[in-house]
Amino acid sequence: MLNNEQFEEKTISRKEIYSGKIIDVAVDEVRLPDGGTSKRELVFHPGGVGIIAFDEHDRLLLVKQFRKPLEKVILEIPAGKIDPGEGKNPEMTAARELEEETGYRAKSLSHLTSMYLSPGFANEVLHIYHAQGVEKVENPLAQDEDEVLELYHLTLEEAQQAMKDQLICDAKTIYAIQYWELLTKGK
Amino acid sequence: MLNNEQFEEKTISRKEIYSGKIIDVAVDEVRLPDGGTSKRELVFHPGGVGIIAFDEHDRLLLVKQFRKPLEKVILEIPAGKIDPGEGKNPEMTAARELEEETGYRAKSLSHLTSMYLSPGFANEVLHIYHAQGVEKVENPLAQDEDEVLELYHLTLEEAQQAMKDQLICDAKTIYAIQYWELLTKGK
Repeated sequence: MLNNEQFEEKTISRKEIYSGKIIDVAVDEVRLPDGGTSKRELVFHPGGVGIIAFDEHDRLLLVKQFRKPLEKVILEIPAGKIDPGEGKNPEMTAARELEEETGYRAKSLSHLTSMYLSPGFANEVLHIYHAQGVEKVENPLAQDEDEVLELYHLTLEEAQQAMKDQLICDAKTIYAIQYWELLTKGK
Repeated sequence: MLNNEQFEEKTISRKEIYSGKIIDVAVDEVRLPDGGTSKRELVFHPGGVGIIAFDEHDRLLLVKQFRKPLEKVILEIPAGKIDPGEGKNPEMTAARELEEETGYRAKSLSHLTSMYLSPGFANEVLHIYHAQGVEKVENPLAQDEDEVLELYHLTLEEAQQAMKDQLICDAKTIYAIQYWELLTKGK
Protein backbone atom coordinates (compact mmCIF):
# COMPACT_ATOMS: atom_id res chain seq x y z
CA MET A 1 0.00 0.00 0.00
CA LEU A 2 1.18 3.47 -0.89
CA ASN A 3 1.24 6.22 1.69
CA ASN A 4 -0.59 9.45 0.94
CA GLU A 5 2.59 11.34 -0.06
CA GLN A 6 3.11 8.82 -2.86
CA PHE A 7 -0.10 10.10 -4.52
CA GLU A 8 0.36 13.80 -3.95
CA GLU A 9 0.54 16.34 -6.79
CA LYS A 10 2.32 19.51 -5.73
CA THR A 11 1.44 22.81 -7.41
CA ILE A 12 4.39 24.27 -9.31
CA SER A 13 2.46 27.27 -10.61
CA ARG A 14 -1.12 28.43 -10.93
CA LYS A 15 -2.70 30.41 -13.76
CA GLU A 16 -5.89 32.22 -12.73
CA ILE A 17 -8.33 32.02 -15.63
CA TYR A 18 -11.59 33.45 -14.36
CA SER A 19 -13.14 34.82 -11.20
CA GLY A 20 -16.93 34.86 -11.33
CA LYS A 21 -20.06 35.12 -9.20
CA ILE A 22 -20.36 31.39 -8.60
CA ILE A 23 -17.14 29.81 -9.83
CA ASP A 24 -13.43 30.60 -10.13
CA VAL A 25 -11.31 28.78 -12.70
CA ALA A 26 -7.57 28.11 -12.62
CA VAL A 27 -5.02 25.83 -14.29
CA ASP A 28 -2.27 24.36 -12.14
CA GLU A 29 1.00 22.98 -13.38
CA VAL A 30 1.67 20.09 -10.99
CA ARG A 31 4.62 17.93 -10.01
CA LEU A 32 3.54 14.27 -10.20
CA PRO A 33 4.74 11.70 -7.64
CA ASP A 34 7.08 10.17 -10.28
CA GLY A 35 8.75 13.57 -10.84
CA GLY A 36 6.97 14.35 -14.11
CA THR A 37 4.62 17.27 -14.63
CA SER A 38 1.04 17.67 -15.79
CA LYS A 39 -1.73 20.29 -15.91
CA ARG A 40 -4.89 20.28 -13.81
CA GLU A 41 -7.92 22.33 -14.78
CA LEU A 42 -9.66 23.44 -11.59
CA VAL A 43 -13.06 24.91 -10.81
CA PHE A 44 -13.57 26.41 -7.35
CA HIS A 45 -17.11 26.64 -5.99
CA PRO A 46 -18.35 27.72 -2.52
CA GLY A 47 -20.31 24.49 -2.06
CA GLY A 48 -24.00 23.99 -1.59
CA VAL A 49 -26.80 22.15 0.13
CA GLY A 50 -29.68 19.89 -0.86
CA ILE A 51 -32.73 19.27 1.32
CA ILE A 52 -34.84 16.12 1.52
CA ALA A 53 -38.22 17.28 2.83
CA PHE A 54 -41.54 15.46 2.94
CA ASP A 55 -44.93 17.15 3.23
CA GLU A 56 -47.73 16.09 5.60
CA HIS A 57 -48.73 13.33 3.12
CA ASP A 58 -45.19 11.88 2.97
CA ARG A 59 -44.66 13.26 -0.50
CA LEU A 60 -41.21 14.58 -1.44
CA LEU A 61 -40.90 18.31 -2.12
CA LEU A 62 -39.27 18.97 -5.49
CA VAL A 63 -38.72 22.08 -7.55
CA LYS A 64 -38.90 22.33 -11.30
CA GLN A 65 -36.47 24.75 -12.91
CA PHE A 66 -34.63 25.52 -16.11
CA ARG A 67 -30.95 24.64 -16.01
CA LYS A 68 -28.99 26.66 -18.53
CA PRO A 69 -26.01 24.26 -18.83
CA LEU A 70 -28.45 21.48 -19.82
CA GLU A 71 -30.81 23.76 -21.77
CA LYS A 72 -33.75 22.00 -20.17
CA VAL A 73 -36.21 21.93 -17.30
CA ILE A 74 -35.58 19.32 -14.61
CA LEU A 75 -37.02 18.33 -11.22
CA GLU A 76 -34.69 18.56 -8.20
CA ILE A 77 -34.78 18.55 -4.44
CA PRO A 78 -34.56 22.11 -3.07
CA ALA A 79 -30.93 23.20 -3.13
CA GLY A 80 -28.65 26.14 -3.41
CA LYS A 81 -25.19 27.42 -2.93
CA ILE A 82 -23.68 28.58 0.33
CA ASP A 83 -23.69 32.36 0.63
CA PRO A 84 -20.70 34.26 2.01
CA GLY A 85 -21.07 34.21 5.79
CA GLU A 86 -22.87 30.85 5.80
CA GLY A 87 -19.68 28.96 4.98
CA LYS A 88 -19.15 27.43 8.39
CA ASN A 89 -22.81 26.63 8.90
CA PRO A 90 -24.36 25.00 5.83
CA GLU A 91 -27.42 24.13 7.95
CA MET A 92 -28.29 27.85 7.75
CA THR A 93 -28.13 27.61 3.97
CA ALA A 94 -30.37 24.55 4.04
CA ALA A 95 -33.00 26.28 6.20
CA ARG A 96 -32.92 29.37 3.97
CA GLU A 97 -33.07 27.51 0.66
CA LEU A 98 -35.90 25.22 1.82
CA GLU A 99 -38.00 28.24 2.74
CA GLU A 100 -37.09 30.33 -0.33
CA GLU A 101 -37.66 27.54 -2.82
CA THR A 102 -40.67 25.75 -1.32
CA GLY A 103 -42.32 28.06 1.21
CA TYR A 104 -41.88 25.36 3.86
CA ARG A 105 -39.90 25.53 7.07
CA ALA A 106 -38.38 22.64 9.07
CA LYS A 107 -38.31 22.18 12.86
CA SER A 108 -34.88 20.59 12.49
CA LEU A 109 -32.42 19.48 9.85
CA SER A 110 -30.33 16.33 10.19
CA HIS A 111 -27.16 16.03 8.15
CA LEU A 112 -27.11 12.87 6.01
CA THR A 113 -23.96 13.13 3.92
CA SER A 114 -21.61 15.52 2.18
CA MET A 115 -20.56 14.66 -1.36
CA TYR A 116 -18.05 16.03 -3.81
CA LEU A 117 -19.78 16.13 -7.16
CA SER A 118 -16.93 16.25 -9.70
CA PRO A 119 -13.72 15.59 -7.77
CA GLY A 120 -11.71 15.34 -10.99
CA PHE A 121 -11.92 19.06 -11.69
CA ALA A 122 -14.13 20.81 -9.09
CA ASN A 123 -13.94 21.26 -5.31
CA GLU A 124 -17.73 21.70 -5.04
CA VAL A 125 -19.19 19.85 -2.07
CA LEU A 126 -22.90 19.36 -1.44
CA HIS A 127 -24.25 18.85 2.07
CA ILE A 128 -27.51 16.92 2.16
CA TYR A 129 -30.03 17.32 4.99
CA HIS A 130 -33.22 15.52 5.92
CA ALA A 131 -35.73 18.12 7.08
CA GLN A 132 -37.88 17.07 10.03
CA GLY A 133 -41.21 18.61 11.09
CA VAL A 134 -41.83 20.39 7.81
CA GLU A 135 -44.64 22.97 7.74
CA LYS A 136 -45.91 25.55 5.29
CA VAL A 137 -45.03 29.15 6.18
CA GLU A 138 -47.46 32.08 5.87
CA ASN A 139 -44.98 34.63 4.52
CA PRO A 140 -41.90 32.74 3.33
CA LEU A 141 -38.58 34.28 2.30
CA ALA A 142 -38.67 35.47 -1.30
CA GLN A 143 -37.14 33.44 -4.11
CA ASP A 144 -34.03 34.66 -5.89
CA GLU A 145 -35.03 37.28 -8.44
CA ASP A 146 -33.48 35.48 -11.41
CA GLU A 147 -35.03 32.06 -10.68
CA VAL A 148 -38.34 30.65 -11.89
CA LEU A 149 -39.33 27.68 -9.74
CA GLU A 150 -42.42 25.51 -9.49
CA LEU A 151 -43.08 23.32 -6.48
CA TYR A 152 -44.06 19.65 -6.84
CA HIS A 153 -45.16 17.08 -4.27
CA LEU A 154 -44.39 13.52 -5.44
CA THR A 155 -45.04 10.08 -4.01
CA LEU A 156 -42.19 7.56 -4.19
CA GLU A 157 -43.83 5.87 -7.18
CA GLU A 158 -44.20 9.21 -8.97
CA ALA A 159 -40.58 10.11 -8.21
CA GLN A 160 -39.37 6.74 -9.53
CA GLN A 161 -41.38 7.35 -12.71
CA ALA A 162 -39.88 10.85 -13.02
CA MET A 163 -36.43 9.23 -12.83
CA LYS A 164 -37.35 6.83 -15.64
CA ASP A 165 -38.59 9.82 -17.64
CA GLN A 166 -35.26 11.59 -16.91
CA LEU A 167 -37.07 14.58 -15.44
CA ILE A 168 -35.25 13.63 -12.23
CA CYS A 169 -31.69 13.29 -13.47
CA ASP A 170 -29.21 14.95 -11.14
CA ALA A 171 -26.94 13.36 -8.54
CA LYS A 172 -28.42 14.91 -5.39
CA THR A 173 -32.02 14.10 -6.33
CA ILE A 174 -31.12 10.53 -7.38
CA TYR A 175 -29.40 10.24 -3.99
CA ALA A 176 -32.64 11.44 -2.36
CA ILE A 177 -34.74 8.81 -4.18
CA GLN A 178 -32.32 6.03 -3.17
CA TYR A 179 -32.36 7.33 0.42
CA TRP A 180 -36.16 7.24 0.33
CA GLU A 181 -36.14 3.68 -1.08
CA LEU A 182 -33.79 2.61 1.72
CA LEU A 183 -36.04 4.32 4.31
CA THR A 184 -39.07 2.38 3.10
CA LYS A 185 -37.05 -0.82 3.40
CA GLY A 186 -36.28 0.00 7.03
CA LYS A 187 -32.59 0.75 6.69
CA MET B 1 -48.63 24.50 -13.86
CA LEU B 2 -46.24 26.37 -16.10
CA ASN B 3 -45.30 25.07 -19.50
CA ASN B 4 -41.65 24.60 -20.34
CA GLU B 5 -41.37 27.85 -22.29
CA GLN B 6 -42.30 29.77 -19.15
CA PHE B 7 -39.03 28.59 -17.56
CA GLU B 8 -36.71 29.03 -20.51
CA GLU B 9 -33.67 31.31 -20.46
CA LYS B 10 -32.62 32.36 -23.96
CA THR B 11 -28.99 33.18 -24.65
CA ILE B 12 -28.55 36.81 -25.70
CA SER B 13 -24.77 36.58 -26.00
CA ARG B 14 -21.96 34.24 -24.98
CA LYS B 15 -18.46 35.13 -23.84
CA GLU B 16 -15.97 32.28 -24.26
CA ILE B 17 -13.63 32.31 -21.27
CA TYR B 18 -11.49 29.22 -21.58
CA SER B 19 -11.08 26.17 -23.77
CA GLY B 20 -9.09 23.40 -22.09
CA LYS B 21 -8.29 19.71 -22.23
CA ILE B 22 -11.20 18.64 -20.05
CA ILE B 23 -13.44 21.66 -19.64
CA ASP B 24 -14.55 24.73 -21.55
CA VAL B 25 -15.87 27.78 -19.70
CA ALA B 26 -18.27 30.45 -20.93
CA VAL B 27 -20.52 33.17 -19.53
CA ASP B 28 -23.93 33.65 -21.11
CA GLU B 29 -26.05 36.75 -20.87
CA VAL B 30 -29.59 35.35 -20.76
CA ARG B 31 -33.10 36.65 -21.24
CA LEU B 32 -35.24 35.52 -18.30
CA PRO B 33 -38.88 34.47 -18.75
CA ASP B 34 -40.05 37.75 -17.14
CA GLY B 35 -38.07 39.77 -19.70
CA GLY B 36 -35.18 40.65 -17.38
CA THR B 37 -31.60 39.58 -17.93
CA SER B 38 -29.02 37.70 -15.92
CA LYS B 39 -25.62 36.03 -16.35
CA ARG B 40 -24.96 32.30 -16.28
CA GLU B 41 -21.49 30.90 -15.70
CA LEU B 42 -21.18 27.66 -17.64
CA VAL B 43 -18.71 24.77 -17.62
CA PHE B 44 -18.85 22.33 -20.53
CA HIS B 45 -17.51 18.82 -20.00
CA PRO B 46 -17.58 15.77 -22.33
CA GLY B 47 -19.24 13.60 -19.67
CA GLY B 48 -17.97 10.46 -18.06
CA VAL B 49 -18.72 7.02 -16.72
CA GLY B 50 -18.55 5.22 -13.39
CA ILE B 51 -18.46 1.45 -13.01
CA ILE B 52 -19.85 -0.66 -10.17
CA ALA B 53 -17.86 -3.91 -10.29
CA PHE B 54 -17.62 -6.72 -7.72
CA ASP B 55 -14.78 -9.23 -7.54
CA GLU B 56 -15.20 -13.01 -7.09
CA HIS B 57 -15.70 -12.51 -3.33
CA ASP B 58 -18.47 -9.91 -3.83
CA ARG B 59 -16.20 -7.07 -2.78
CA LEU B 60 -16.53 -3.73 -4.54
CA LEU B 61 -13.59 -2.59 -6.70
CA LEU B 62 -12.46 0.90 -5.73
CA VAL B 63 -9.50 3.05 -6.68
CA LYS B 64 -7.60 5.37 -4.41
CA GLN B 65 -6.27 8.53 -6.04
CA PHE B 66 -5.22 12.08 -5.34
CA ARG B 67 -7.77 14.67 -6.43
CA LYS B 68 -6.13 18.02 -7.02
CA PRO B 69 -9.27 20.17 -6.56
CA LEU B 70 -9.73 18.64 -3.07
CA GLU B 71 -5.98 18.41 -2.30
CA LYS B 72 -6.55 14.95 -0.88
CA VAL B 73 -6.62 11.23 -1.58
CA ILE B 74 -10.07 9.63 -1.84
CA LEU B 75 -11.57 6.24 -2.70
CA GLU B 76 -13.87 6.07 -5.72
CA ILE B 77 -15.47 3.56 -8.04
CA PRO B 78 -13.50 3.27 -11.31
CA ALA B 79 -14.45 6.16 -13.56
CA GLY B 80 -13.26 8.40 -16.31
CA LYS B 81 -14.24 10.86 -18.93
CA ILE B 82 -15.53 10.03 -22.36
CA ASP B 83 -12.81 10.28 -24.99
CA PRO B 84 -13.46 11.87 -28.38
CA GLY B 85 -14.96 9.14 -30.55
CA GLU B 86 -16.60 7.36 -27.61
CA GLY B 87 -19.24 10.07 -27.25
CA LYS B 88 -22.12 8.05 -28.63
CA ASN B 89 -21.13 4.88 -26.84
CA PRO B 90 -20.25 5.51 -23.18
CA GLU B 91 -20.31 1.72 -22.62
CA MET B 92 -16.99 1.65 -24.53
CA THR B 93 -15.62 4.20 -22.08
CA ALA B 94 -16.83 2.11 -19.16
CA ALA B 95 -15.16 -1.06 -20.49
CA ARG B 96 -11.91 0.82 -21.13
CA GLU B 97 -11.79 2.62 -17.80
CA LEU B 98 -12.61 -0.53 -15.82
CA GLU B 99 -9.68 -2.34 -17.43
CA GLU B 100 -7.25 0.60 -17.25
CA GLU B 101 -7.99 1.44 -13.64
CA THR B 102 -8.48 -2.01 -12.11
CA GLY B 103 -7.02 -4.61 -14.49
CA TYR B 104 -10.43 -6.32 -14.57
CA ARG B 105 -12.67 -6.90 -17.56
CA ALA B 106 -16.46 -7.42 -17.58
CA LYS B 107 -18.47 -9.87 -19.69
CA SER B 108 -21.20 -7.26 -19.92
CA LEU B 109 -22.13 -3.83 -18.63
CA SER B 110 -25.69 -2.88 -17.69
CA HIS B 111 -26.61 0.79 -17.59
CA LEU B 112 -28.07 1.82 -14.23
CA THR B 113 -28.55 5.57 -14.46
CA SER B 114 -27.17 8.77 -15.93
CA MET B 115 -26.81 11.75 -13.63
CA TYR B 116 -25.96 15.39 -14.06
CA LEU B 117 -23.57 16.28 -11.28
CA SER B 118 -23.78 20.07 -11.01
CA PRO B 119 -26.72 21.16 -13.18
CA GLY B 120 -26.49 24.72 -11.88
CA PHE B 121 -23.30 25.48 -13.77
CA ALA B 122 -22.02 22.35 -15.58
CA ASN B 123 -23.41 20.10 -18.30
CA GLU B 124 -21.32 17.14 -17.12
CA VAL B 125 -23.28 13.88 -17.16
CA LEU B 126 -22.08 10.63 -15.60
CA HIS B 127 -23.32 7.28 -16.89
CA ILE B 128 -23.18 4.52 -14.28
CA TYR B 129 -22.87 0.85 -15.21
CA HIS B 130 -23.02 -2.37 -13.24
CA ALA B 131 -20.30 -4.69 -14.57
CA GLN B 132 -21.30 -8.36 -14.80
CA GLY B 133 -18.95 -11.35 -15.02
CA VAL B 134 -15.88 -9.46 -13.86
CA GLU B 135 -12.50 -11.21 -14.25
CA LYS B 136 -8.87 -10.26 -13.84
CA VAL B 137 -7.01 -9.72 -17.13
CA GLU B 138 -3.46 -11.02 -17.78
CA ASN B 139 -2.19 -7.96 -19.65
CA PRO B 140 -4.63 -5.10 -19.04
CA LEU B 141 -4.67 -1.74 -20.81
CA ALA B 142 -2.17 0.66 -19.29
CA GLN B 143 -3.25 3.39 -16.88
CA ASP B 144 -3.08 7.00 -17.91
CA GLU B 145 0.48 8.25 -17.57
CA ASP B 146 -0.35 11.10 -15.22
CA GLU B 147 -2.48 9.06 -12.81
CA VAL B 148 -1.36 7.19 -9.68
CA LEU B 149 -4.03 4.69 -8.67
CA GLU B 150 -4.21 1.94 -6.09
CA LEU B 151 -6.85 -0.78 -6.26
CA TYR B 152 -8.96 -1.72 -3.24
CA HIS B 153 -11.46 -4.54 -2.71
CA LEU B 154 -14.02 -3.64 0.00
CA THR B 155 -16.88 -5.49 1.63
CA LEU B 156 -20.11 -3.54 2.16
CA GLU B 157 -19.27 -3.04 5.83
CA GLU B 158 -15.81 -1.75 4.94
CA ALA B 159 -17.27 0.58 2.32
CA GLN B 160 -19.82 1.93 4.80
CA GLN B 161 -16.99 2.56 7.25
CA ALA B 162 -14.97 4.33 4.51
CA MET B 163 -18.00 6.59 3.97
CA LYS B 164 -18.13 7.43 7.68
CA ASP B 165 -14.38 8.17 7.52
CA GLN B 166 -15.04 10.42 4.46
CA LEU B 167 -12.53 8.47 2.40
CA ILE B 168 -15.54 7.64 0.22
CA CYS B 169 -17.04 11.07 -0.33
CA ASP B 170 -18.03 11.62 -3.94
CA ALA B 171 -21.48 11.44 -5.52
CA LYS B 172 -20.95 8.47 -7.86
CA THR B 173 -19.36 6.30 -5.17
CA ILE B 174 -22.02 7.21 -2.60
CA TYR B 175 -24.59 6.26 -5.28
CA ALA B 176 -22.76 2.92 -5.67
CA ILE B 177 -22.89 2.20 -1.92
CA GLN B 178 -26.61 2.99 -1.77
CA TYR B 179 -27.20 0.82 -4.86
CA TRP B 180 -25.33 -2.00 -3.10
CA GLU B 181 -27.40 -1.50 0.09
CA LEU B 182 -30.58 -1.68 -1.97
CA LEU B 183 -29.32 -4.83 -3.74
CA THR B 184 -28.73 -6.55 -0.40
CA LYS B 185 -32.27 -5.62 0.64
CA GLY B 186 -33.61 -7.32 -2.48
CA LYS B 187 -34.77 -4.24 -4.36
